[in-house]
Amino acid sequence: MADLALLGICGSLRRGSYNRMLMLEAARAFGGRFEEGDIRFPLFDEDLEKAEGIPAPVERLAAAIRAADAVILVTPEYNQSFSSPMKNAIDWLSRVKGNPWLRKPVAILSAADGRAGGARAQYALRLAVNKFRMRLLTGPEVMVAHCAREFDADGRLTGESYRRALAELMDELRREASRTD
Amino acid sequence: MADLALLGICGSLRRGSYNRMLMLEAARAFGGRFEEGDIRFPLFDEDLEKAEGIPAPVERLAAAIRAADAVILVTPEYNQSFSSPMKNAIDWLSRVKGNPWLRKPVAILSAADGRAGGARAQYALRLAVNKFRMRLLTGPEVMVAHCAREFDADGRLTGESYRRALAELMDELRREASRTD
Amino acid sequence: MADLALLGICGSLRRGSYNRMLMLEAARAFGGRFEEGDIRFPLFDEDLEKAEGIPAPVERLAAAIRAADAVILVTPEYNQSFSSPMKNAIDWLSRVKGNPWLRKPVAILSAADGRAGGARAQYALRLAVNKFRMRLLTGPEVMVAHCAREFDADGRLTGESYRRALAELMDELRREASRTD
Amino acid sequence: MADLALLGICGSLRRGSYNRMLMLEAARAFGGRFEEGDIRFPLFDEDLEKAEGIPAPVERLAAAIRAADAVILVTPEYNQSFSSPMKNAIDWLSRVKGNPWLRKPVAILSAADGRAGGARAQYALRLAVNKFRMRLLTGPEVMVAHCAREFDADGRLTGESYRRALAELMDELRREASRTD
Repeated sequence: MADLALLGICGSLRRGSYNRMLMLEAARAFGGRFEEGDIRFPLFDEDLEKAEGIPAPVERLAAAIRAADAVILVTPEYNQSFSSPMKNAIDWLSRVKGNPWLRKPVAILSAADGRAGGARAQYALRLAVNKFRMRLLTGPEVMVAHCAREFDADGRLTGESYRRALAELMDELRREASRTD
Repeated sequence: MADLALLGICGSLRRGSYNRMLMLEAARAFGGRFEEGDIRFPLFDEDLEKAEGIPAPVERLAAAIRAADAVILVTPEYNQSFSSPMKNAIDWLSRVKGNPWLRKPVAILSAADGRAGGARAQYALRLAVNKFRMRLLTGPEVMVAHCAREFDADGRLTGESYRRALAELMDELRREASRTD
Repeated sequence: MADLALLGICGSLRRGSYNRMLMLEAARAFGGRFEEGDIRFPLFDEDLEKAEGIPAPVERLAAAIRAADAVILVTPEYNQSFSSPMKNAIDWLSRVKGNPWLRKPVAILSAADGRAGGARAQYALRLAVNKFRMRLLTGPEVMVAHCAREFDADGRLTGESYRRALAELMDELRREASRTD
Repeated sequence: MADLALLGICGSLRRGSYNRMLMLEAARAFGGRFEEGDIRFPLFDEDLEKAEGIPAPVERLAAAIRAADAVILVTPEYNQSFSSPMKNAIDWLSRVKGNPWLRKPVAILSAADGRAGGARAQYALRLAVNKFRMRLLTGPEVMVAHCAREFDADGRLTGESYRRALAELMDELRREASRTD
């Protein structure tokens, strides 16, 4: 199997984000090359788009999506939905020419403080990207609950059942990324 | 009945937004005083919050919500969900001290290009604000479809059935804002 | 305050259902009179409706909703949504003359095996009843997770924080049911 | 390409259902062999399951899903969600041994009276089947609005853009059903 390229988009801008730790664990489980996409975009504004065009970092992320063999969307739960930086990225990306997501294998993951691990965030995100006609994996779910206790000092995910689910999800993603028809 | 204060939050930053036209029509139907809340916030970032505190415009909007007798959330549909500026506002507002939304009468409205008028945007928004324990009206739904054809040159909503639904929704909102128990 | 009448609808047909236990705890916390609605209806079928009319038990439940001061919908989570008997009841009820739910104070509760306590079931149910224009409470959420461990041999809910949330939700419901404007 | 077997599940029990017409149009567009699954099951009840086991028609449908190369779920919109017979089928199917849906290519379609064509029903259904780990297509969306005007006397879907979307969705489904890795 060729060396596959994975792109990760982390919905939290916080440097020490648990979702970023989860993203990096997912990248290790996936294998291949990994790159994190930058979503520090201006707040979505059609007047801005009209005046100045699509911001350069948005175009860069769109190109990175096109170039990747697979993408992971890793989101915290803010107010029982996915994060505003993630929504902002999705909205800007929907403005570029063409659809960078078309047939792209994509998996959703989440880490959250509460006991549900971002279940509602994942559901809201699933619906908000549905129109792009990705190959959006349905499972297994990786939703890390009480996330502050689930990563060690090196940012490694410690729980066995989480690690197994993550490995299985990344296996599925590699399988989609490797398919030939 | 006292002169009630209505706060409007428009999910589109575009100056000529149809959602802003709809918001202003709603304000006329509501009667009383009206103010539009400003949601031109930085993109939500906990590191920024830690370094500089909650941005002043967020605190101002929180104060405006507290002071209002009722609030309307008027959102376009971006990618079959509500807009990123609206999500960003909700996420920042959830960080202020106290809960400005508690028991606040709130109505959701939408205007969109497509034939469904923002039905999915409204549903996603309804769930994303549920935890704030507003008094969130359930209807009637005001979802203006194919919105570019539904406002005249003066920004007035022209369709009779939309106007009736809007008037009824604002009546309900005034009723909630006026209740004494 | 008058003796208020509460109607409970339990989404599980299982006699020993934890959701029924939760419903009965809610009834105790609400105070006043309590009645459980029967939802053992035929599977929804418009041909059946055309041939035989709306089934008598559906009409009875509609009348019970009209007569009640408030209603609680208590649902298990089946496949990350609310239960089929509950959906079936909602669909049949939407066929009776008039809208028995109009302005009715309604609260949603859930008990489930998993760690999230039915969070997704509650969200799906919230959207599926939104059009009836109830006064649908937004919180506090009562979602009993790992429910088999949370009720004692007498069917009493044991956890303190659950009991507090339940009491608060029922206080809110009584407040809505008692309002005079 | 081999002659593929498609299974259709129609969420309406009504004999003259527009959703059944849509299902049959989808079957024609898919090509290959077609079978409609029967979902006239008893209302889901764990006590019944304990006493009598899983009903024979549920086991038959599970076997039909296993045997099919692809499945279409075609649902009306009842109360802004998918139909109760469909939910009942999903709930019963989740009780059989093994998971008949695993990796199965599945597409969702809808026909509805309103202007949105079942957009909210599709979204609710998408979430309610997510856990089965199907290969659930994300698009293109086939949502037939004002459905009573969209089928002719022979039950054929007349609108060109609907027919194109349907053909494209069925092409995608065949592609998934034919993949070899």
